Amino acid sequence: MARLPVIEFWYEFASTYSYLSAMRIEDAATAAGVDIRWRPFLLGPIFSTQGWNTSPFNIYPAKGRYMWRDMEREAARTGLRLRRPAPFPQNSLTATRVALLGADEPWGPTFSRAVFDKAFGEGLSIEEPSAIRDLVALVGLDSDSIMRNATAEANKTRLRAVTEEARSRGLFGAPTFFTEDGEMFWGNDRLDQALAWATGDRPSGVR
Amino acid sequence: MARLPVIEFWYEFASTYSYLSAMRIEDAATAAGVDIRWRPFLLGPIFSTQGWNTSPFNIYPAKGRYMWRDMEREAARTGLRLRRPAPFPQNSLTATRVALLGADEPWGPTFSRAVFDKAFGEGLSIEEPSAIRDLVALVGLDSDSIMRNATAEANKTRLRAVTEEARSRGLFGAPTFFTEDGEMFWGNDRLDQALAWATGDRPSGVR
Repeated sequence: MARLPVIEFWYEFASTYSYLSAMRIEDAATAAGVDIRWRPFLLGPIFSTQGWNTSPFNIYPAKGRYMWRDMEREAARTGLRLRRPAPFPQNSLTATRVALLGADEPWGPTFSRAVFDKAFGEGLSIEEPSAIRDLVALVGLDSDSIMRNATAEANKTRLRAVTEEARSRGLFGAPTFFTEDGEMFWGNDRLDQALAWATGDRPSGVR
Repeated sequence: MARLPVIEFWYEFASTYSYLSAMRIEDAATAAGVDIRWRPFLLGPIFSTQGWNTSPFNIYPAKGRYMWRDMEREAARTGLRLRRPAPFPQNSLTATRVALLGADEPWGPTFSRAVFDKAFGEGLSIEEPSAIRDLVALVGLDSDSIMRNATAEANKTRLRAVTEEARSRGLFGAPTFFTEDGEMFWGNDRLDQALAWATGDRPSGVR
């Protein structure tokens, strides 16, 4: 069987719109005939270079109020439950280290969806290592071994390299999708266009 | 005949995504059975209160680069031509004063589309009063009288009131759509949801 086209799905566990994408991307990709490569990363360091020390939804309150209302509507439209975790944004460092460890393993996407569901489906904290350890166990993994490898120096170094890769590729928010030819699509609202592009269905006249 | 539901279309002539909406909103509204109230306004004073003295697409270069690529794709997808005016963003004060004068007149939307096409279809300046005067004449109006009324104190005062209304209603970007029950939708990507909401088609469970 021919290899399917692939899109990279860059996501941040503290990002509300990443939640919407994470919960629907596998179904959408299957329907489109595309494979997904899950790319967990930290948006904080990217935001820092833009002069932001927290979510822009907190820095700009009108935009933040709107975002939560939009999330209510979009979650309802796509059949997802939604609760706000406190504080927002959640510190996603531990969760991201674990997700990175599993990014190319079958359990990676499962674990990542469990984190998103905890944070935005249940509105519970994902900040404490103990919360992440519980989720690791929940998806059927050896939590001692996973937590040890996630916090090992090699994985920390890898996460820093991923952040640097994000920055160098011009990524500025989440979720972001990349096709194999390097086309970037930002936001849950662009998932369908990213999938279409990956399968060769592109707006005419665009090079 | 029963009155159609109405949505307000708040737009800024310097805004790229307002261009996309302006060129398709009447067709989309007709198809949905909705009337559009065109609401020209100035985004600059709103951005100022957020600490921005120019477009966020200039302040955050990675976001700006992405926006122009996204505009290329979206314009192509919807059959619109796209050229970048220089400088970006354009000073839209004169154009907005004229559009406000015509906002509730049949010529208002026609004039507004002509401005958008000049700025983003042809990539030409809309900054000088002479450019706006030409567009006023182009849509068949008495340019002396329109330009005089547009810059009269009454119309300047009205524009300041509109800006204050935008701020007080929580508007933070353009385009923005409001339904008659006060629901706000931000961005060209939300036009379809705004139209659906206006006709009573809402995500279940959202109050």
